Amino acid sequence: MTDRTADLAALSTAQKASLTSGADFWTTKAIDAAGIPSIMLTDGPHGLRKQAGRSDHLGLNESVPATCFPPAAALGSTFDPALAERVGEALGVESAIEDVAVILGPGVNLKRSPLCGRNFEYLSEDPVVSGVMGAALVRGIQSQGVGASLKHFAANNQEDDRMRVSADIDPRPLRELYLRGFERVVEEAKPWTVMCSYNRINGVYASENPWLLTQLLREEWGFDGVVVSDWGAVNDRVSALVAGLDLEMPASGGRTDAEIVSAVESGRMDPAVLDTAAGRMIDLVRRAQARPAAAGPLDVEAHHALAREAASRSIVLLKNEGGLLPLAAGASVAVIGEFARTPRFQGGGSSHINPTRVDTALDALRASLGEGVGFAPGFAFDGSDAERLRAQAVETAAAHDVAVVFLGLPEAEESEGFDRTGIDLPAVQQELLDAVIAANPHVVVVLSHGGVVALPFADRVPSIVDAWLLGQAGGSAIADVLTGVVNPSGRLAETIPYRIEDTPAFGSFPGSFGHVRYGEGILVGYRWYDARRIDVAYPFGHGLSYTAFEYGAPAASVTADGDVAVSVAVTNTGDRDGREVVQVYIGREQSAVERAPRELKAFASVEIPAGATRQVEVVVRRRDLAYWDIRVDRWVVEGGEYRVDVGASSRDLRGSVVVEVSGDEVRMPLTRDSSLGELLAHPVLGQAVAEQLTGIAAPAEGGEGIMSADAMAKMLASFPIGRLGSFGMGITAEQVDELIAASAGD
Amino acid sequence: MTDRTADLAALSTAQKASLTSGADFWTTKAIDAAGIPSIMLTDGPHGLRKQAGRSDHLGLNESVPATCFPPAAALGSTFDPALAERVGEALGVESAIEDVAVILGPGVNLKRSPLCGRNFEYLSEDPVVSGVMGAALVRGIQSQGVGASLKHFAANNQEDDRMRVSADIDPRPLRELYLRGFERVVEEAKPWTVMCSYNRINGVYASENPWLLTQLLREEWGFDGVVVSDWGAVNDRVSALVAGLDLEMPASGGRTDAEIVSAVESGRMDPAVLDTAAGRMIDLVRRAQARPAAAGPLDVEAHHALAREAASRSIVLLKNEGGLLPLAAGASVAVIGEFARTPRFQGGGSSHINPTRVDTALDALRASLGEGVGFAPGFAFDGSDAERLRAQAVETAAAHDVAVVFLGLPEAEESEGFDRTGIDLPAVQQELLDAVIAANPHVVVVLSHGGVVALPFADRVPSIVDAWLLGQAGGSAIADVLTGVVNPSGRLAETIPYRIEDTPAFGSFPGSFGHVRYGEGILVGYRWYDARRIDVAYPFGHGLSYTAFEYGAPAASVTADGDVAVSVAVTNTGDRDGREVVQVYIGREQSAVERAPRELKAFASVEIPAGATRQVEVVVRRRDLAYWDIRVDRWVVEGGEYRVDVGASSRDLRGSVVVEVSGDEVRMPLTRDSSLGELLAHPVLGQAVAEQLTGIAAPAEGGEGIMSADAMAKMLASFPIGRLGSFGMGITAEQVDELIAASAGD
Repeated sequence: MTDRTADLAALSTAQKASLTSGADFWTTKAIDAAGIPSIMLTDGPHGLRKQAGRSDHLGLNESVPATCFPPAAALGSTFDPALAERVGEALGVESAIEDVAVILGPGVNLKRSPLCGRNFEYLSEDPVVSGVMGAALVRGIQSQGVGASLKHFAANNQEDDRMRVSADIDPRPLRELYLRGFERVVEEAKPWTVMCSYNRINGVYASENPWLLTQLLREEWGFDGVVVSDWGAVNDRVSALVAGLDLEMPASGGRTDAEIVSAVESGRMDPAVLDTAAGRMIDLVRRAQARPAAAGPLDVEAHHALAREAASRSIVLLKNEGGLLPLAAGASVAVIGEFARTPRFQGGGSSHINPTRVDTALDALRASLGEGVGFAPGFAFDGSDAERLRAQAVETAAAHDVAVVFLGLPEAEESEGFDRTGIDLPAVQQELLDAVIAANPHVVVVLSHGGVVALPFADRVPSIVDAWLLGQAGGSAIADVLTGVVNPSGRLAETIPYRIEDTPAFGSFPGSFGHVRYGEGILVGYRWYDARRIDVAYPFGHGLSYTAFEYGAPAASVTADGDVAVSVAVTNTGDRDGREVVQVYIGREQSAVERAPRELKAFASVEIPAGATRQVEVVVRRRDLAYWDIRVDRWVVEGGEYRVDVGASSRDLRGSVVVEVSGDEVRMPLTRDSSLGELLAHPVLGQAVAEQLTGIAAPAEGGEGIMSADAMAKMLASFPIGRLGSFGMGITAEQVDELIAASAGD
Repeated sequence: MTDRTADLAALSTAQKASLTSGADFWTTKAIDAAGIPSIMLTDGPHGLRKQAGRSDHLGLNESVPATCFPPAAALGSTFDPALAERVGEALGVESAIEDVAVILGPGVNLKRSPLCGRNFEYLSEDPVVSGVMGAALVRGIQSQGVGASLKHFAANNQEDDRMRVSADIDPRPLRELYLRGFERVVEEAKPWTVMCSYNRINGVYASENPWLLTQLLREEWGFDGVVVSDWGAVNDRVSALVAGLDLEMPASGGRTDAEIVSAVESGRMDPAVLDTAAGRMIDLVRRAQARPAAAGPLDVEAHHALAREAASRSIVLLKNEGGLLPLAAGASVAVIGEFARTPRFQGGGSSHINPTRVDTALDALRASLGEGVGFAPGFAFDGSDAERLRAQAVETAAAHDVAVVFLGLPEAEESEGFDRTGIDLPAVQQELLDAVIAANPHVVVVLSHGGVVALPFADRVPSIVDAWLLGQAGGSAIADVLTGVVNPSGRLAETIPYRIEDTPAFGSFPGSFGHVRYGEGILVGYRWYDARRIDVAYPFGHGLSYTAFEYGAPAASVTADGDVAVSVAVTNTGDRDGREVVQVYIGREQSAVERAPRELKAFASVEIPAGATRQVEVVVRRRDLAYWDIRVDRWVVEGGEYRVDVGASSRDLRGSVVVEVSGDEVRMPLTRDSSLGELLAHPVLGQAVAEQLTGIAAPAEGGEGIMSADAMAKMLASFPIGRLGSFGMGITAEQVDELIAASAGD
């Protein structure tokens, strides 16, 4: 890093201000005289969307061809940070070749509701999955001298009214769920930039929230990079700069730069604020300049192969009864559904890639299985011509041994920019499926979609393959899994519920009149379904293999660092090599705070050859045991027993072990607001007070009493000690004050 | 009302302060020289708990005998304000006889969770039921020249940590659910006093919340009485007085009066604040003095008869298959369960009455049915001796034609002062029931309990009678219903869910570390189960009769006042006189705000002779159609179609009619934060702006576009117009400012 002080000294206020907003839609402003070049930031997150030539104002034009890797909803299902890191490296390579300094991703927002239109860009409903996978992507991208942009910071969990809505979230869900993934990525992977989101958080725009952008991000988490606005997220430029937003994108045509200059010159804003932001921008430019020259033109084939590998690893085999899968070579297969021929492999909006090529499942299956493959589109995306297409499909299905039916959400049903209103597949597709099942019950359903869809047919088909949106090589990847070239190992990074009414945010999502209350609190995703004991179609973490795995008894111990090391032997009991995702959940039976029955705290994706056993070791970080304590505004690990559940999904637990963890001390001084119960529990003063009190134990003589002695004791224990004086229980207000003073001294 | 100014002028600051706190546990301070006597306030709400002789400090001693009427959980089930008003009159009469100026009730807090230990003191999970029934009780009490005390104001929906916990509630649920019943009672029935609750609301103690006690209660709702603290609810006396709390109870021994004097004398508090509170106290005393002399000693028999009538009307017949009920004279009946001999008829805590007498169901059934009645206690409340008691009960059940099994919650399981942790009946009772069913399937279960209990046996018994806590005549009342002397007409004022995990507040109740988030928002009670389509054991409003009722097609029209008049013909198609509770629910298919599928807005309890038809007319007040609009902080009625569902329960709708309602105008001026969609919808400016904008309709040429045109339109419509300038869509920042100015002028 060069000396930013020298750079800054040479710049005027106007020049400094100019560094803190875009030159156009995608680039920063150069100051040639100072040797500061312009750098380019370009959409991601699962491929490069660099617009060719001069950008239009809305950034909608054609972009240069780039490899479309699996969107996050798919990649999250791999549960494999090593694979994500390789994808990140490839993204970095493509960025470097195109001289892009920063690629805008990854997105680690939690999936609060399946209705969020942008869920396909997010990794999981769980913050550990989001954090681990997001950090891997950042590491990969930045290994190539290209910056990542961790987004959308924070609580951007819906598209409806996203540019204004206030996400109203209590401290515990905010810290433990919605910020936890960001925290992990910032601390582990040190992204060059963080992108602030459009929305408000508890009433304050993310773009002008000093708590979020400075106190939390920089002071608590140690972030040392640039905060860039989401495109158009700046509401008030000066407030944003003061809050810690360094770079406004896109260009404002100089208007907001002038506001900054005016604020400095009029004395309304400390010039040091501008120096800090401009200095960070200079640091970012220098970082970008330090990137080694790109190795050469894009190796399209190699990156396509990686996209195919990642896609095949993302696929989740939800169900496979009766052994329909994998399909044997030469099998008689009816491929049905327009998605097989016209794949939906990415989502709409700013992440939309111009792919280097696109594989279709139909081509890939034909190539793999040969002459036995028939095809019928079954339906049109716009629902037209339904009867004829259905009849044709039924005929095709009846003429083959197996029907592989490709269903999913057409592009019109989900996108950045708006939220879904339901989770059902289009009626035309469900009707098609019913007709196919009637003609040939040997059905494999393959699903293409960004957000979760309901599967009311799950009991009526033997096999279901969840293929999410898989990127440009998805077609080949689906064929690889269907034919057994790849043994599936994807696991659900989000629960598939039965009904939208079962989902945690139902009724409060997406809010109205500019506010959305996160009323479900900490019970997001599987935490909700587990706590409320709601049956789901397929639980978080679920995913089958063509082989089977057995778990030994887990062992757990606390390390010198206070982490919990968990070890379990996993055996591949089948005759096929396979990959298991070992999941470690933590729960506590008794707690001072509300908790989900279990929370994922660590996982490992492990390749295990047929017949082999692997000893799998994972570490639960002590900090991931902590809850956010609203009394003291910090993370606190409760002392005591923690149940460690090890399993193949959140509802397929294979073994449990209890580990004793030492707690963090939380000293709460006695105050007049302390309860009598808290005073009686005081280690030093409690006993003496108990002896002094009168009239607590039993009702007075002469009556049966208005309540049981036990109820009375509970009621009195809740009395604030500052108010005991009025109840004459042998302790005066003055004595209470003396006790408080005494407790402060011990 | 006498001239309080003259009274006040004669008082010193210390004397005024002395009027605003208690002399002891139950009485105010007299100022003999000024002709201001002491008055007494005494616990209710369903009977008088006036302590005999000198009070002990905790108010636990024996009280004078009084009639124990059905607690609110039962009385709410009558859905009959006329009956509630008669009970209120009787409470007033008993208060007057005992020279009690104010009886502390009714309690109209909503039942947020079945776990709240004090639910037996509350009327319903619905604010219209709570408001209508609460107003009737106040009218009745105050008709006797005795003051009511509407409590616990507000959002006191749990016992755990009740003296400190902050009920964190968003504006809509606070206004539309938790305050709505209070608002109705204050405006319709003008209680002399309102009791502020212990808890905080959104961080501020109710006792020192100027918004709650002054702005809302007095300025919005027009309350002109005294706000009294719940006993011990005052945290900071001066803050409380300033906020609008007039009377601290119980006595503080002069300590807090001195704080007030000091605040006045030091100039920290405006003396007018004290004058206002002292003046209100003088008004209250004068009101109490104006009470006519009591008519004579308590007519114990007449009040017991009223308690019996009210109790019999409170009983809800949940299920009656196979015609076991009513029991015929001379029937062979095994009465089983300790509750039949030792009734639980009231709850523990401050409402606990010393009854004038107590009826038992066993005695009443023996008197009614004669020799055919056998008895076995079946279990002991403490669970002891279970096997022997069960065996004896089984023998008794087998020896009779019908087994009437009295189950319920022992006193130790629910009370003021703590919350329940589950909704199951004690295991010993469930085991007893299983054994009885095995011996004799002709089982009638009679339930005694304050809070809702789960009924996992509902499918295995032919008849279930929900008897709640019925007051001192409950035993006779149960016999009246079982034998058909009274045809049951009670309806569930709260839903009976299958599982605690199904309930709205599960997971957030009772909160921790001093905060409880009302995360379910407006979806309280049946609103939650209906919105989420959760099956329940018995729905809100449910209750059977020994006859049957048929509904004609409902009609609805808007009155000159804007209310909705609903009319429906109801026919008693059976051969027994009976009483039907006609329920009117309102719903809207489309709305700008989240809504429950249906909300009770009016009801009528109607006596209909066998074979007769009654035209039932109810009025839905226009104000009850309104939602609380957070944009403008006021009630707003949306214009358009409202669905009026008329039925016998929330899930037994017998007819629907649609009515068109004119809306309230909400003018939202355009601002830079207005969205492009809102600008385009502007009646004057929208069209011109649409013509000026460019680049919105379709993606630029040369690409397939990154999203569909429809998605793009939705995304752009959400853009705040103040930020459009940076996106160069043909409209500059200056033009936006001009549009905003133009909209303000039109």
